[in-house]
Amino acid sequence: MPVAMTTSPLAPSSYPELPKIAGVRMSTAQAGVRYKDRTDVLLMELCEGTTVAGVLTRSKTASAPVLACRTALKAGKARALVVNSGNANAFTGSVGVESVTRVTEACAGVLNCPPSAIYTASTGVIGERLPDEKITQALQTLAGTLSENAWNDAARAIMTTDTYPKMATRTVQIGGTNVTLNGIAKGSGMIAPDMATMLAFVFTDAALPAPVLQEMLDEANASTFNCITVDGDTSTSDTLLLFATGKAGNSAADTTDFRRALHEILHELALHVVKDGEGAEKLISISVTGAASDKAARTIGMSIANSPLVKTAIAASDANWGRIVMAVGKAGEEADRDKLMIAIGGVVVAHHGAVDPDYRESHIEAHMKGRNITIDVDVGIGSGKARVWTCDLTHRYIDINGSYRT
Amino acid sequence: MPVAMTTSPLAPSSYPELPKIAGVRMSTAQAGVRYKDRTDVLLMELCEGTTVAGVLTRSKTASAPVLACRTALKAGKARALVVNSGNANAFTGSVGVESVTRVTEACAGVLNCPPSAIYTASTGVIGERLPDEKITQALQTLAGTLSENAWNDAARAIMTTDTYPKMATRTVQIGGTNVTLNGIAKGSGMIAPDMATMLAFVFTDAALPAPVLQEMLDEANASTFNCITVDGDTSTSDTLLLFATGKAGNSAADTTDFRRALHEILHELALHVVKDGEGAEKLISISVTGAASDKAARTIGMSIANSPLVKTAIAASDANWGRIVMAVGKAGEEADRDKLMIAIGGVVVAHHGAVDPDYRESHIEAHMKGRNITIDVDVGIGSGKARVWTCDLTHRYIDINGSYRT
Repeated sequence: MPVAMTTSPLAPSSYPELPKIAGVRMSTAQAGVRYKDRTDVLLMELCEGTTVAGVLTRSKTASAPVLACRTALKAGKARALVVNSGNANAFTGSVGVESVTRVTEACAGVLNCPPSAIYTASTGVIGERLPDEKITQALQTLAGTLSENAWNDAARAIMTTDTYPKMATRTVQIGGTNVTLNGIAKGSGMIAPDMATMLAFVFTDAALPAPVLQEMLDEANASTFNCITVDGDTSTSDTLLLFATGKAGNSAADTTDFRRALHEILHELALHVVKDGEGAEKLISISVTGAASDKAARTIGMSIANSPLVKTAIAASDANWGRIVMAVGKAGEEADRDKLMIAIGGVVVAHHGAVDPDYRESHIEAHMKGRNITIDVDVGIGSGKARVWTCDLTHRYIDINGSYRT
Repeated sequence: MPVAMTTSPLAPSSYPELPKIAGVRMSTAQAGVRYKDRTDVLLMELCEGTTVAGVLTRSKTASAPVLACRTALKAGKARALVVNSGNANAFTGSVGVESVTRVTEACAGVLNCPPSAIYTASTGVIGERLPDEKITQALQTLAGTLSENAWNDAARAIMTTDTYPKMATRTVQIGGTNVTLNGIAKGSGMIAPDMATMLAFVFTDAALPAPVLQEMLDEANASTFNCITVDGDTSTSDTLLLFATGKAGNSAADTTDFRRALHEILHELALHVVKDGEGAEKLISISVTGAASDKAARTIGMSIANSPLVKTAIAASDANWGRIVMAVGKAGEEADRDKLMIAIGGVVVAHHGAVDPDYRESHIEAHMKGRNITIDVDVGIGSGKARVWTCDLTHRYIDINGSYRT
């Protein structure tokens, strides 16, 4: 029994209009990889000279496209990206590797470029053969319908259980020259640390060498996609790629603004992935301070963010802070129980190892019933800090994941 | 809106009758700690000379009774155990410590023994002051109604969201003398590795010194309670205690049978905790072989057992083995994707890095619809192995945990 996909209550009221990026064209098709009556293949064409950086899942059972991306990234050059939804081409053995090869070769043939410059990404069901012939057959048509203005279509074609397309854009200057960044992403289950999103792609017309892109991407990823979780399950397909066409023709001057814009785009897309987490009804922002290190703070934050008991309580608008105490305790990181401070919605509920005597649940009742829940925890040890994001755990998560394949 | 507590479909059809254990007497009371119209305090009286061993939660935010047990265990002697349900006396600061002191002193007064020989355990809501006066007031009556035959009542008095009492018994010989072991336990949420059960108590009339008991308990715990999970959340209150009255008067001869019986009792109780996991409808046994070490095998097993995607699929009787691949991949332990073998219900579904060409979902459809799901995974690296147990993730888990405090 398929679950009706009503749009997440945390979806934005309107979507940004993404501008053209010189050197980037795109088209989408209904190839019927798995879904019917919706687009499921995206071709992004990139001009010659495009550099690329990427962050890929650390899963030990990574998908065939992820392995191929890892190899291609060594050269740092890109001419196209082919994405399909509905089938992850993961755990498909040598057949899966051959599928990737056929898709990249077909795409290279159509675009007249080396196969090593073609990147692919697949998400959806694991363990089923990718019907790559449906994708290769679509490529000729896709190449003939490329447009600079189909960003919304692109964001929709890569969706699986996502209930809304995820897009973000920024325009900033590098050395006095305007450069634009456009990002698209998809979620929405199997989202966890160690590269959280399943797929996110950022395109810019900036001229930046691959190693510089890579360094910027790693840094921005660490505090955005790597700090979100929906269900603690790490995908076999997580792929984040940043493509730079160089068409803006900027000098390699001060990149501070670009770096900030990249961080903002990843942050925005990462939060969209959480907001569209399977069954999500509330966005939960967790800030941890006073930890032994930033890493320890993130571990504690993720322990809270992945706790089913915390997430089910929040789903029920219950300020059950005792479960936050539990989650801090189980994280395995140093914490001083008698200095622990917990605030919800900015209201201190517990400190000095016990409930605040002035705290009343009525103080945060309205906050708990809202869509955006904030939790601040100070563990009283050092100066390590981190911020992580998750969503609540609702009946719909179970509905969606009990019926995904049927 | 409280959730109606229907008995777990995995509950046994009948409960064992636990025999007397010389040197152990017990009584229960309705003290009104939190619940109405049910027993919520248990007093277990132990004869002079009783030795004790224990395993306690590794949580950094352990409850006040856990800290007191840790101190008392150093002496290895016990005269009584006082357990209450409904309130965990966790994260209650110095007030919580004073509550434990008042309970142990009152109990010592009533039984005329040193307070250091009194063990306490509390489970239930975190962060609320324990109304210890209700317990201390009940103690005089409890001491006046002690019986050798109230094991079923004892197992019931310690329940919180448990839907059935958990008991196990064995009689074996040490050096030709009969010795009996009785165990009781409670679950049923906030169950995770690092001492999984919330509370389990084993009583025996065997004569064994505390260090021997401790060594046996650690060993048996490692492959039983430490290998179960309901939701990956580690309790602040996890307590496993083993009391030996010495009344059997056995020699300190061969303890092989006793050791095996202890393991069996812990195994049986641990499985009861999983079977009565919040919302559980299926028991999932996961066997991991071929790992780099036993520890790695357990980590991989727990990664599968704690995956909400695996657990929701199984709840829906869906043999979604791709999610098992994902969980193996995210565990962070070495695994050879191309040698990975996965069997469900004894049927090989995947091997050599891909789905078995002969596998059809119909082969395991009946198995998936049953109550006992078995998953075997070989990760193709070495000879490390482990077995872990969990339950499925159902709507009732969310119902129970969204309404526990209301």
